[in-house]
Amino acid sequence: MTDILQPGATIGILGGGQLGRMLSVAASRLGFKTHIFEPSTNPPAGHVADRVTAAPYEDVEALADFAASVDVITYEFENVPTSALDMLESVRPIRPNRKALAVSQDRLVEKAFLNDLGLKTAPFAAVDDEVDLAEAIDEIGLPAILKPRRFGYDGKGQARLKAPEDAAQALADMAGAPSILEGFVEFSHEVSVIGARGLDGAVSCFDPGENVHKDGILDTTTVPARLTPAQRTDAVLLAAKILNKLDYVGVMGVELFVTREGLIVNEIAPRVHNSGHWTQNGCVVDQFEQHIRAVIGWPLGDGTRHSNVVMENLIGDDVDRIPDYAKEGVAIHLYGKAEAKPGRKMGHINRITGPAN
Amino acid sequence: MTDILQPGATIGILGGGQLGRMLSVAASRLGFKTHIFEPSTNPPAGHVADRVTAAPYEDVEALADFAASVDVITYEFENVPTSALDMLESVRPIRPNRKALAVSQDRLVEKAFLNDLGLKTAPFAAVDDEVDLAEAIDEIGLPAILKPRRFGYDGKGQARLKAPEDAAQALADMAGAPSILEGFVEFSHEVSVIGARGLDGAVSCFDPGENVHKDGILDTTTVPARLTPAQRTDAVLLAAKILNKLDYVGVMGVELFVTREGLIVNEIAPRVHNSGHWTQNGCVVDQFEQHIRAVIGWPLGDGTRHSNVVMENLIGDDVDRIPDYAKEGVAIHLYGKAEAKPGRKMGHINRITGPAN
Repeated sequence: MTDILQPGATIGILGGGQLGRMLSVAASRLGFKTHIFEPSTNPPAGHVADRVTAAPYEDVEALADFAASVDVITYEFENVPTSALDMLESVRPIRPNRKALAVSQDRLVEKAFLNDLGLKTAPFAAVDDEVDLAEAIDEIGLPAILKPRRFGYDGKGQARLKAPEDAAQALADMAGAPSILEGFVEFSHEVSVIGARGLDGAVSCFDPGENVHKDGILDTTTVPARLTPAQRTDAVLLAAKILNKLDYVGVMGVELFVTREGLIVNEIAPRVHNSGHWTQNGCVVDQFEQHIRAVIGWPLGDGTRHSNVVMENLIGDDVDRIPDYAKEGVAIHLYGKAEAKPGRKMGHINRITGPAN
Repeated sequence: MTDILQPGATIGILGGGQLGRMLSVAASRLGFKTHIFEPSTNPPAGHVADRVTAAPYEDVEALADFAASVDVITYEFENVPTSALDMLESVRPIRPNRKALAVSQDRLVEKAFLNDLGLKTAPFAAVDDEVDLAEAIDEIGLPAILKPRRFGYDGKGQARLKAPEDAAQALADMAGAPSILEGFVEFSHEVSVIGARGLDGAVSCFDPGENVHKDGILDTTTVPARLTPAQRTDAVLLAAKILNKLDYVGVMGVELFVTREGLIVNEIAPRVHNSGHWTQNGCVVDQFEQHIRAVIGWPLGDGTRHSNVVMENLIGDDVDRIPDYAKEGVAIHLYGKAEAKPGRKMGHINRITGPAN
């Protein structure tokens, strides 16, 4: 099997949420089919995929059939169980590669990796027990935040420490999971770079977007971000450094804090990223197509931004505003989820605010 | 059932080709599912649809099941058999309506309808036999073109008459089908208007595009088209007149010849149209989403053009150029068809040539 796939081939996607859904649509634009592997029933991506396998990641037979039916495998989330990846990788290539997953699945490994590359992060320390935690608080100071090293996502299962007496409860919240204490960073705002690296090693980054969070969940991304030309260059070079070091193939989201001392890496996500949804209406080739292009071995597309855009997430009941948005000049993107629960990402809108400047 | 559908509802689409495929993707953006009805196997739209029914239009049971499973029915081509439409319409609303289909399924009815509206067409006459044809030639003159009244599409099954002695063969080519003789129109170029009308009666037209054909098939569409401001206004008003007269709901393609005597209507298509594919990369809301919005009873979207675009069709072997196009800054849209036969529409590209002017 050649590394460069031809239209008509099938891309296997682990995860059937909104990212898998939009990846599937992008794959169709290039003439490819998709096969979704997703434990839950009626996944959003299933509405626009050629095939769906509904099975748990522990179902070895289902994984084997899935792998045999596709030409390459990618994923919409980084927390695929290692055993499943081992099995799948023995049959078909997984892109982005395992190294990227290993780094991003563990906050401690990720921060160490970034520091090794010469990139700044928040101060951090590994915490496995109360002794570690006491030492970490001494070293990093308070306030700080205790997080499990693995499976952290959108601020769930994290504990803030304002004073030393919060330590015991915070550690209890971790329920024995290996953890990491992170110090706070004084930053003026957060930006993210959606970077892509092709199979040929070419790197292309979308223009950085400026992110605003609400209740720990991304609320809006605005392009252009408030950055000096030097910061903009730094942001892109820094993303490229990460992509190259990991021999990465695909799209990665790199969240950055803008501080007086320069850019500090918050976290990386080895997948298409919520803060890159603006590209759907701001560029000819969006982050989803860029990811698909990389995964199928095609040259990366032209991600030049043609418009200024504000992306707004629709969380939970926000989706009730759709009738109003439908009357406005905004692009609507809904995920096909049946029920609007609090905190659930139901869709987003992209508002074009003018030609690119 | 209310006329305005909510996300999660299912849109039935008759026809599973590239137009159905791109309609299905647009429906997914708004949170809707699609169910494709298509006689042939492995239809392009099936790769991105929630459900596919593969059955002939004569299969009454399959039609009934299909209709019962969807909330509204639309179509990607105008030649759906009348008996199937009768059955479907007894279960679910069909948008655009039957009147639009009746007009566009018959070239004679279409031209008479347009003339009744005060719009200019090529000179024409009904031809059922040699006597009609001789009279029609006398009236219209030569050269002229003899076409079957029904099922004409992309120049197939038409006969050109250069001299009176071509009459017998041309009539034989019609194989007894009721026909129409059309005179030639001297025009400088062809443009088309992609117009939309919502369930609320609102009309919105995309900026007219300029079409170039090759071997009777659309080759390129360029926006902006070469039109004076007055012609541009005429084109849009004319399209609106047609949409309103038909009490139309959905997107319609209106092909126009630009002549010294003004705009002459070539033909109308009661569906999304190949000459509107540029909207995918030139507007926030493209023709496919505009059609879906109308069909589900939503307000029409903002079809303002933000960029200049050249759309190029990929016919047959043109698709072999994809590796080159993938390296350029163009948007690629492939249809997932297995085999590149001569004359077969395999995909298209949209080239952004600058900000809208």
